[in-house]
Amino acid sequence: MTSSDPESLVDLLLRYERTAAEVLPSAAYDFIAEGAGEEISSREAVAAWRAYRLRPHVLRDVSHVDTSTSVLGVRLSAPVLIAPTAFHVMSNAQGEVETARGVRAAASLMVVPTLSSMPLEAVAAALSGPWWLQVYCTRERELTRRLVADAARLGASAVVLTGDTPLVARKRRVIFPPVTADQYLTNFRRYLARDAEYAFATSVDPSIGVEIVTWLREESGLPVVVKGILRGDDAKACIEAGAEGLIVSNHGGRQLDRALPTAAALADVVDAVGDSCEVLVDGGIRSGIDVLIALALGARAVLLGRPVQWALAAEGASGVERVLRTIRDEFFQAMALAGASSTSQIDRSLLSAAFKP
Amino acid sequence: MTSSDPESLVDLLLRYERTAAEVLPSAAYDFIAEGAGEEISSREAVAAWRAYRLRPHVLRDVSHVDTSTSVLGVRLSAPVLIAPTAFHVMSNAQGEVETARGVRAAASLMVVPTLSSMPLEAVAAALSGPWWLQVYCTRERELTRRLVADAARLGASAVVLTGDTPLVARKRRVIFPPVTADQYLTNFRRYLARDAEYAFATSVDPSIGVEIVTWLREESGLPVVVKGILRGDDAKACIEAGAEGLIVSNHGGRQLDRALPTAAALADVVDAVGDSCEVLVDGGIRSGIDVLIALALGARAVLLGRPVQWALAAEGASGVERVLRTIRDEFFQAMALAGASSTSQIDRSLLSAAFKP
Amino acid sequence: MTSSDPESLVDLLLRYERTAAEVLPSAAYDFIAEGAGEEISSREAVAAWRAYRLRPHVLRDVSHVDTSTSVLGVRLSAPVLIAPTAFHVMSNAQGEVETARGVRAAASLMVVPTLSSMPLEAVAAALSGPWWLQVYCTRERELTRRLVADAARLGASAVVLTGDTPLVARKRRVIFPPVTADQYLTNFRRYLARDAEYAFATSVDPSIGVEIVTWLREESGLPVVVKGILRGDDAKACIEAGAEGLIVSNHGGRQLDRALPTAAALADVVDAVGDSCEVLVDGGIRSGIDVLIALALGARAVLLGRPVQWALAAEGASGVERVLRTIRDEFFQAMALAGASSTSQIDRSLLSAAFKP
Amino acid sequence: MTSSDPESLVDLLLRYERTAAEVLPSAAYDFIAEGAGEEISSREAVAAWRAYRLRPHVLRDVSHVDTSTSVLGVRLSAPVLIAPTAFHVMSNAQGEVETARGVRAAASLMVVPTLSSMPLEAVAAALSGPWWLQVYCTRERELTRRLVADAARLGASAVVLTGDTPLVARKRRVIFPPVTADQYLTNFRRYLARDAEYAFATSVDPSIGVEIVTWLREESGLPVVVKGILRGDDAKACIEAGAEGLIVSNHGGRQLDRALPTAAALADVVDAVGDSCEVLVDGGIRSGIDVLIALALGARAVLLGRPVQWALAAEGASGVERVLRTIRDEFFQAMALAGASSTSQIDRSLLSAAFKP
Repeated sequence: MTSSDPESLVDLLLRYERTAAEVLPSAAYDFIAEGAGEEISSREAVAAWRAYRLRPHVLRDVSHVDTSTSVLGVRLSAPVLIAPTAFHVMSNAQGEVETARGVRAAASLMVVPTLSSMPLEAVAAALSGPWWLQVYCTRERELTRRLVADAARLGASAVVLTGDTPLVARKRRVIFPPVTADQYLTNFRRYLARDAEYAFATSVDPSIGVEIVTWLREESGLPVVVKGILRGDDAKACIEAGAEGLIVSNHGGRQLDRALPTAAALADVVDAVGDSCEVLVDGGIRSGIDVLIALALGARAVLLGRPVQWALAAEGASGVERVLRTIRDEFFQAMALAGASSTSQIDRSLLSAAFKP
Repeated sequence: MTSSDPESLVDLLLRYERTAAEVLPSAAYDFIAEGAGEEISSREAVAAWRAYRLRPHVLRDVSHVDTSTSVLGVRLSAPVLIAPTAFHVMSNAQGEVETARGVRAAASLMVVPTLSSMPLEAVAAALSGPWWLQVYCTRERELTRRLVADAARLGASAVVLTGDTPLVARKRRVIFPPVTADQYLTNFRRYLARDAEYAFATSVDPSIGVEIVTWLREESGLPVVVKGILRGDDAKACIEAGAEGLIVSNHGGRQLDRALPTAAALADVVDAVGDSCEVLVDGGIRSGIDVLIALALGARAVLLGRPVQWALAAEGASGVERVLRTIRDEFFQAMALAGASSTSQIDRSLLSAAFKP
Repeated sequence: MTSSDPESLVDLLLRYERTAAEVLPSAAYDFIAEGAGEEISSREAVAAWRAYRLRPHVLRDVSHVDTSTSVLGVRLSAPVLIAPTAFHVMSNAQGEVETARGVRAAASLMVVPTLSSMPLEAVAAALSGPWWLQVYCTRERELTRRLVADAARLGASAVVLTGDTPLVARKRRVIFPPVTADQYLTNFRRYLARDAEYAFATSVDPSIGVEIVTWLREESGLPVVVKGILRGDDAKACIEAGAEGLIVSNHGGRQLDRALPTAAALADVVDAVGDSCEVLVDGGIRSGIDVLIALALGARAVLLGRPVQWALAAEGASGVERVLRTIRDEFFQAMALAGASSTSQIDRSLLSAAFKP
Repeated sequence: MTSSDPESLVDLLLRYERTAAEVLPSAAYDFIAEGAGEEISSREAVAAWRAYRLRPHVLRDVSHVDTSTSVLGVRLSAPVLIAPTAFHVMSNAQGEVETARGVRAAASLMVVPTLSSMPLEAVAAALSGPWWLQVYCTRERELTRRLVADAARLGASAVVLTGDTPLVARKRRVIFPPVTADQYLTNFRRYLARDAEYAFATSVDPSIGVEIVTWLREESGLPVVVKGILRGDDAKACIEAGAEGLIVSNHGGRQLDRALPTAAALADVVDAVGDSCEVLVDGGIRSGIDVLIALALGARAVLLGRPVQWALAAEGASGVERVLRTIRDEFFQAMALAGASSTSQIDRSLLSAAFKP
């Protein structure tokens, strides 16, 4: 028993989101919050994790609880990464550089987005350890090629391919985020000789298939992680094409509305790939118990998206750091209370198959 | 990313329905909206589609997405038809002729109702492509015989037999629609020597069985589609009697209250008939994602009922056209985001069997 | 289509119940309405029937729909009986005699309660056809013996033994109904030499087992129906003891709170007894569709309890008659719309096993 | 039928809780009420029992209903014990001594907590019959050793080891209860030479495993009951280590939030241990029907936690006695209405497997 308990992540994020709603232009707040279509998937992501019930072990030695794990060979103090989300500059003037400072302070791993408003050099410089680069596969393949090459040169240790965006889904609220061309064309202007604006508007190449994984791997010399997987068969196809990691994701509910919650899709993907690949998951993670559940279902780690933007908007780098530290502390406690002293002891038997709240 | 996203069908229909509620007499609005009995089936139709969750494929070449399909040999740019509903004249002074103009503009297929206030000639003239005629089997068999013969002569390519109305179910709200005898007796006066009013009031023949399918087929020389099927065994009986198409329908919840939602009945019918017959479905379809789900369950196409009346009331033919274009666009996007480039690639694996929201 | 649809039973009963709430003393209204304990079972009875979804047949000849059935050899125009409920005098000054007039007008079958305020002779005289007598098995066996003998003499064709009341469960609202000793001791005073009040207060014999069925049958010379069955094994034990009918009932939720709704218990009992016994059901039946569902689950007929008291309070015998006629009309329509022209065609395939609303 | 029904436990506890909310400092009320984290588990405990539906037997001789049982050889008039909860002095100035008086009056069994504010002698003196002592396994093993030895000397007949608290989970509301050092250090000051305050703050030993069961049994010479079990495999491990009883518990939802409700975990534990061990359960029990359900699932007895604190706050010992008498009366009635005349007749067939409300 301590004299004062730290704020829970749920409460912290409620506060950060409320602050974000106050300090951001409503178009920025809505762009971050919104989902595709009727926003069914974006709204049910959180509830899907909360619907699981736990079967904790007791009377196990948890005097030394180790929350660390490795993801594609990178050792992390907790299985929590920063998901790639567009335009952190919406939430903080220093954009992804500010995020990077928080990530560095918490010793986490950031997936730097192609739609970063800040140059890769600046973001990479603000990070101390390894980082990953997220890419779409653009019609202008040269853009992808040069971006990936620069990332590799700047220390990226993996490439995350967003696979679920052959086109951008319709949204009800904000069509385009409130950022200037200077901000959203950062990487496009740098790597393209031609009209960057046009290239941006037509950037997504809807023709790519899993063979792009092989191409990306060869171009970058880096392991490729495919983001946006919701099915076991797709997962297997990616692995055959050379993927070394998968992120179970429905793009925060921003692509196909009514896509299965990731909390419900994860087990199918994990079961399909077995030990041949590391599986991560994003979407709706809001507490250390959610992380425990994700790992119990077989995830290697989770990624946080919207929470990072809210933290950035509310408290900048220190907000990001606080989110990461809080979730690590909560995960530590959840492990101890579940009788797990290392992440390898977290298995699916921690979850109740039958009970539905 | 585009500079402005078009209105979604859900939002468009909310607007059209609201307008209909304003511009129509309340008896007309209620007649369109109401269901039988306690309105359980009519109210849960929409939710039943929305309860499905999707397992989209990613990293599939969707640079060419083809939303077209054929229904009984008729090629359509999208698998969406106009369901037969009574008395379009309630919603627009030009009635079914106005509907037909919208259908023609969107290159869809209209099922023209027996209870059309407009003469078949006028409706057929307003349509460019093929159309179907809906019939009840009346006690005055001569009426049906002559109506069908005329329809065949005027270019109808199929007859849709409403099978679920041996009597008209009780309604709580409006007993009889606010239309004049001139409007509701159009076809009855034309084809009957005897008192049309009496014939109308006693029109439904409760004694007919599946053998009527054979009779209709012979009389019309056209393929017969049976509407109102909710069970696999009934489906098989219809096929044995010569039906070439089936419409899974609970009559918009206007006949037996508590009948299964069509979204829940469809798979059973599809599984029962296999490849021996085309299966369509109506009831509660309100978005392109609903269409994707219907096709994933095995439907060949869907039909829209109430949305057409609301669109007619709000914007006439251009409203009908807009509904059809919007649902096609949404279906296009849903296919692309699900990794399907043709309707033949849409299968049941797109649906999650386990997760219930 | 008719020019005016009759009021549905749901609407009629809402109106009757509202009237009862106005015209009855609140203690009488509450005594009729209440359930045991937290009133969980009494409140969920209606919803349990409404949770079923139907799979109607179409294209079947329903030009002659026969709603009649026989129950223990008694031919009834519809499978709806009057459940035994205490003290109709609470709702109408003529009590069970008034009820009997309504039953006679509608040609239904009344189960006359032991707790009738009116002498059996008067009730029997007001009925034209067969009737049944409900009994508790009292500690004063002589009371039961004489009551049953008189009933047999007065034309009762069966005895209904209430099996679920070895003691009277606690109620939150009204402990004892607002009736006078003259009213509630009618049968006790008649058949007992000893102090009727004392006998009444201690009337229920908690020691009886299924062997009482055999005893009752021998004493009365009438078939015995056991009321209060919720399990297949109990059902079989009753049949072995000589029961010819069973009523699946949780006593309107007035005995063991959280007892299974009868809509959920019925199938188990039906499956256990097969053809060896007729199974009836009460509890929460409020529409003709409910009757269809009960018969689809295997019931031979249903019984109405609270609706009769409300009807009595609102309109006396003509209210009771109207309830019975309305439910028959609704059942007729439900049969026609489900494709059943006789009750023997109603089977469990009419219900959807999978879909849950 | 009686002239006035006693207040149900549900109503009584609502009243006691309301009184507690009035008379206690809000920090005390909240400390008693709160759960860990988002309070999901603490809030769903009651509902989980209420979700079961019953299949009562009828026509069984229940003229003699015996609610008694034995727990670890102790004969009790009803299968209801007092759970160990911290600091009864929050609710009543006489703390656990006052509780003990109520327990004695109702002839129940009290599990005296380590965090008792009253000396064991005083509590034991206020109790007439057998009692159990609850212990955490402290880092200062000497404390546990001496506490247990004294308890044995003072007549404790079993030791209850809390197994689910290697650390104290975070709470949103009250971090530390409103009690003085004099009150919360009672046992720590008595048994420790060193700084009791420090020892208290670091009391829980997170390193203990099931081997502690063996140690406790040897130290105390008493049977050991492990509290906090939610899984069959843990249950088996405890039995192998020498446990003679288990308490299925999620610590009132105060440890791992989203732990399975005990109502949902109980059957798994019972099935795993068979006849090798007695299984008790706590968490959310609020009525005699809940007790019937717990026994139907295989529990030997239940324990009451928060209700005892509310009763203490509202009416002291007589409140505790009334709670115990009321639940026994309700359990008696539930047994009679379910057709069980002894606890050995209560089996899982009383529960419906299929129906979910």
